[in-house]
Amino acid sequence: MSTVAAKREISSAENDELSREAKRPKADDKNGEEGGNESEWENVLSTFTTSSVLSDSAREKIMFVHGKIADHDAVVVLEKTPIREDSLAELFRGSKLRLELRNDIYSSYRLQAPPHLNEIKTTVVCPATEKHVKKYKRQESFLVEETGEDYRSITLPYIQEQSLSLQWVYNILEKKAEADKIVHDDADPEVGFVLLPDLKWDQKQVDDLYLIAIVRQKDIKSLRDLSSEHLPLLQNVFQRGKEAILQRYNLPASKLRVYLHYQPSYYHLHVHFTKLGYDAPGCGVERAHLLSDVIQNLQTNPQFYKSRTLHFPLRADDGLLRRFKEAGRL
Amino acid sequence: MSTVAAKREISSAENDELSREAKRPKADDKNGEEGGNESEWENVLSTFTTSSVLSDSAREKIMFVHGKIADHDAVVVLEKTPIREDSLAELFRGSKLRLELRNDIYSSYRLQAPPHLNEIKTTVVCPATEKHVKKYKRQESFLVEETGEDYRSITLPYIQEQSLSLQWVYNILEKKAEADKIVHDDADPEVGFVLLPDLKWDQKQVDDLYLIAIVRQKDIKSLRDLSSEHLPLLQNVFQRGKEAILQRYNLPASKLRVYLHYQPSYYHLHVHFTKLGYDAPGCGVERAHLLSDVIQNLQTNPQFYKSRTLHFPLRADDGLLRRFKEAGRL
Repeated sequence: MSTVAAKREISSAENDELSREAKRPKADDKNGEEGGNESEWENVLSTFTTSSVLSDSAREKIMFVHGKIADHDAVVVLEKTPIREDSLAELFRGSKLRLELRNDIYSSYRLQAPPHLNEIKTTVVCPATEKHVKKYKRQESFLVEETGEDYRSITLPYIQEQSLSLQWVYNILEKKAEADKIVHDDADPEVGFVLLPDLKWDQKQVDDLYLIAIVRQKDIKSLRDLSSEHLPLLQNVFQRGKEAILQRYNLPASKLRVYLHYQPSYYHLHVHFTKLGYDAPGCGVERAHLLSDVIQNLQTNPQFYKSRTLHFPLRADDGLLRRFKEAGRL
Repeated sequence: MSTVAAKREISSAENDELSREAKRPKADDKNGEEGGNESEWENVLSTFTTSSVLSDSAREKIMFVHGKIADHDAVVVLEKTPIREDSLAELFRGSKLRLELRNDIYSSYRLQAPPHLNEIKTTVVCPATEKHVKKYKRQESFLVEETGEDYRSITLPYIQEQSLSLQWVYNILEKKAEADKIVHDDADPEVGFVLLPDLKWDQKQVDDLYLIAIVRQKDIKSLRDLSSEHLPLLQNVFQRGKEAILQRYNLPASKLRVYLHYQPSYYHLHVHFTKLGYDAPGCGVERAHLLSDVIQNLQTNPQFYKSRTLHFPLRADDGLLRRFKEAGRL
């Protein structure tokens, strides 16, 4: 089962970057389901050649595949889509079944469904770098203990050296990309944020609702940078985020799990909104911090996250883990 | 998360009954994939009428549906099959894709696969009794906000009225039951505890390791009763528990997630030890509290858990949820 978690972390690290998919209008969806305009369909993967399976989960029906498209390295993520209640009637009517076993009142079949009722969500990273490949590869995790001092002497220098591009985040904030996917946009430079669906969510059902709020302030890397001066920002994201989700998806706050990750997968402050009861990747106590707790902690101690010892998992191949080892902290 | 856990129990309970599936010879599989003898295919579900979706999991791509086949009550379980490495080449060659979004090196598609490469495992229980239907039914959860005052005026009186028997806990502590399972026994009346495998763990592999430490002090109901006077107890459980697991299972502390539940499922203080990377039921941030955080919180504020506002999920049929509603707190 560690397999699954490791993979999900990979998935979330990557998918966080990928995750803002448009809410398509019903008419368009319907069109797609019926086959739609044939010219809309293509097969960029017909020439894809597989090098190896980087990781997979039988429980979650997901697979990360490394290979080549033309001369380019590529990573393809295949994930079966959730079963949709609104397509059950058509599914039962239009499928073929083959009996596998019968025992008393129980019987089991293989069911072949019409393709448009049984799609596979496919994400392509191309050209993919060595780093992408490594990131998707199944890896063991280790729990790291980080004091405030560890953060300043080990983690912060490491983050600064890496300085991964946040261009895709700025594209979203400036509406240069994925503008049509935005669920809520608060333009205030101090407390404003953009709320949009995470890529992991196919938006076909509210059961696995997953949205991300990206704050407009650009200098907050993570939980560690927060102090009481950010309370108005955090409270605004919490309040307006919940209101926007109620309005758009008819889901009240009592059905939401609202949290930050530490370590986050990218160092620009963002908040996760997932449906309570949906076992979202990365919602485990070892990585997630409820926004309501973060707010209470900062209200009690304005510098709470400067001094608090925090625990989080790091993958075996994470450069930051090596730094902790080198510093004798593992 | 309780929802999902409940579902897993159903799912695995049910699948156990159904899982004696014949390993079909390759040739037959191949035949089936190609369409096979058409007479082998049927559609017993073409006349199935859906009454309701009992439960589902978007993450696991599974759905439990209640309905009727002819005049009989039936439950149909649909679960998408894992992606198979040995069919990747055919899948990439034979599928249609439709672009959903493109941003930088990332693109996302809907993929329609040939039906024989993308089957749905279908289990039919027919005729199904009332009991089957109830067993598969999901209970929704709601996130409750409990202030210190709510605890004293709503939760505590409720717990006291219920006064569920803890005899099974005392049997363990007194070695009247499950004595042969004990991994570590610390007899000290103040800081002592018994460590033993949780019932959920079959102990067949360390991947899903799950142990419980039950403290010897009998008057600590939950997190809410903890104060700084319990720090020696908590530190002893943390330290000796980790040591015992290293010794018995060769698993170091960096591979462990150590936490308490709030609300717990029984009101005698106990601590969960699960393997990091194992997505254990109840390890979500909305219910789990890392023991290392609990210790830090009590070190900072001896009465931390008397005043802290805590959030936790309650199932729709939980009597405590009704009390919160009656008190106008939901």
